[in-house]
Amino acid sequence: MDYKEKALMLHEEWKGKLSTESKCKINTNEDLALAYTPGVAEPCLVIAEDKEAAYKYTIKSNTILVVSDGSAVLGLGNIGPYAAMPVMEGKAVLFKEFGNVNAVPICLDTQDTEEIIKTVVNIAPGYGGINLEDISAPRCFEIEKRLNELLDIPVFHDDQHGTAIVVLSAIINALKLTGKKKEEVKVVLNGPGSAGIAISKLLLKFGIKNLTLCGRHGILSSETPGLNWMQQSMLEVTNLEDKKGTLADALVGADIFIGVSIPNCITPDMVKSMNKDAIIFAMANPVPEIMPDVAKAAGARIVGTGRSDFPNQVNNVIAFPGIFRGALEGRATQITEEMKLAAAYAIANVIPEDELNDDYIIPRAFDPDVSNKVAEAVKALIK
Amino acid sequence: MDYKEKALMLHEEWKGKLSTESKCKINTNEDLALAYTPGVAEPCLVIAEDKEAAYKYTIKSNTILVVSDGSAVLGLGNIGPYAAMPVMEGKAVLFKEFGNVNAVPICLDTQDTEEIIKTVVNIAPGYGGINLEDISAPRCFEIEKRLNELLDIPVFHDDQHGTAIVVLSAIINALKLTGKKKEEVKVVLNGPGSAGIAISKLLLKFGIKNLTLCGRHGILSSETPGLNWMQQSMLEVTNLEDKKGTLADALVGADIFIGVSIPNCITPDMVKSMNKDAIIFAMANPVPEIMPDVAKAAGARIVGTGRSDFPNQVNNVIAFPGIFRGALEGRATQITEEMKLAAAYAIANVIPEDELNDDYIIPRAFDPDVSNKVAEAVKALIK
Repeated sequence: MDYKEKALMLHEEWKGKLSTESKCKINTNEDLALAYTPGVAEPCLVIAEDKEAAYKYTIKSNTILVVSDGSAVLGLGNIGPYAAMPVMEGKAVLFKEFGNVNAVPICLDTQDTEEIIKTVVNIAPGYGGINLEDISAPRCFEIEKRLNELLDIPVFHDDQHGTAIVVLSAIINALKLTGKKKEEVKVVLNGPGSAGIAISKLLLKFGIKNLTLCGRHGILSSETPGLNWMQQSMLEVTNLEDKKGTLADALVGADIFIGVSIPNCITPDMVKSMNKDAIIFAMANPVPEIMPDVAKAAGARIVGTGRSDFPNQVNNVIAFPGIFRGALEGRATQITEEMKLAAAYAIANVIPEDELNDDYIIPRAFDPDVSNKVAEAVKALIK
Repeated sequence: MDYKEKALMLHEEWKGKLSTESKCKINTNEDLALAYTPGVAEPCLVIAEDKEAAYKYTIKSNTILVVSDGSAVLGLGNIGPYAAMPVMEGKAVLFKEFGNVNAVPICLDTQDTEEIIKTVVNIAPGYGGINLEDISAPRCFEIEKRLNELLDIPVFHDDQHGTAIVVLSAIINALKLTGKKKEEVKVVLNGPGSAGIAISKLLLKFGIKNLTLCGRHGILSSETPGLNWMQQSMLEVTNLEDKKGTLADALVGADIFIGVSIPNCITPDMVKSMNKDAIIFAMANPVPEIMPDVAKAAGARIVGTGRSDFPNQVNNVIAFPGIFRGALEGRATQITEEMKLAAAYAIANVIPEDELNDDYIIPRAFDPDVSNKVAEAVKALIK
């Protein structure tokens, strides 16, 4: 049986990967009177007086919603809310297993930006955070921004920021190994979608100065047709010389390539044209922009992918459970850029200096230290 | 420590009465690849082809939403979504503990009818049913009706129908004991709110012919001021002679009194004015319309209340877990009036004829038979 058949069989066996469980057993009339009526009126009355008490008496302190509209699910595209559910259940499972955060999957029967915003605001009161997932760009930018303005709990689009944080942590370690400096490296990113934009912003925040974005028409410049408002705004902080050309042109002399794009778009010649000690993150899934062995043969020094069967897997699960764990424990109202930076450093520092090497710049997903370290770093920034 | 202090202490200890748990442990990369990417794509693709497969591969088969807008919570009134959460969590606990139904509490940050409807439609795809809770009348009627039209999963307002089903089951057994006939008994109901209306409708469906509703102005008649559209429509099927008068007037010669109203509104004299073998359900909480011993001293034969410390407790937990259990197992698209009737008969029949007596006409909440019997009865009616 191949893994596809096995996955299908297991999903049928599970009949849903989540259950809701009661923390209080109800075996007697007294149990009922304490957990439900009339006893339950007591915490209700306290919360009615002071909303903050919700964190003391309800699931709000440790439960989030995982919300998707099914518009950009994995590599599957716009498969809608019903078909997106196995992914959102899986995400909720990872929140629990890796971060001990309770998570409830919600797949929305609308892809209208305003309606999504309104719906999430309406269902938020009982929960301590919102993890947005698999919402297509550029709608995801607007939705996340507006929700963060409207809600007093953290709203975090993991496809954007989870990926960005892990990529940055990998770059921090790759710079250590190669001795390159963040102010000096030339970085090229292919795929200016939700993850690509978030990675770019976080790299700039980190201190990268020379960053060029590429898309289907090559280098993003003042002449690129069909840019959305977010890509347009990125031109103010990337490709400052307004160069034109192809992805291959962009890569000449580059130190770091970041691909969140399409399989096999990077050739060995392109790698050869890069600077010495080239660093490559080829994260298209399941087939990367260039296979690690091919990239290395062409002279790349450090290669990461999205796959668990190669070294240096860029896997969001390293970031999001700890991020929310820390945010919930510290009662953050937002996940700030500073918290994302701190999380990236925390992840990078999980690997001791003496173990760090070209094939081990990102901690493994199952490293038990990771989510605690991330949580602590996030929590430390909350006032 | 009194029960209020104890309830508050326990709620603080629980920090929320629910947790979400993973059915699949994630200990290895293979686990991750099967429950999440890339394996999860397989059930997604099947569901994208056929929405019905959601019942096979996701939590939809056995998970519902418990939705409230916090507008009419217990006896506490309009305390809003934050303060309503302990009750909705409690309800979810009862779904799990009594019916093995997974339930997720959602408290809405809106009390606008149209927005509630839109929001619930938007969040419904992943779930197998909607239990509405503690939404004030008459908005609850419109919301439930519209949602049932818009969604292909059952929508059930428990404050209405759960109560109605249990009251009817009690009446079925009370009629057996007293030998009275449903076509002949004279029934008076005080409190024409959400529960009162639903009880009335189900009693009429059951075959009660003579039913009079009372409210704060006495008997509901063509002259009663301030009736809402639902109460108005009930005048077409109740109080057919269009009598006017007080609650006391209505009760003269009545066989059954049903109170979902206010404490102590029934006097011994009113009970004395009722027919022989009077049957009284005094369900105001925590203080009933008349105390059972007072009612019995005044001549009532059978008395039920909402309290667990008196015989014949009318407790919705006898109905709703089994109702949804059956509806989910049978993949019902609605909870029909026929199912409600069948559930009431099933509950009534849990008590063997030779155990039935004036103080035991309703099964106990913890009777392990109840929810299975209710589920079977509901399921048997699904095509």
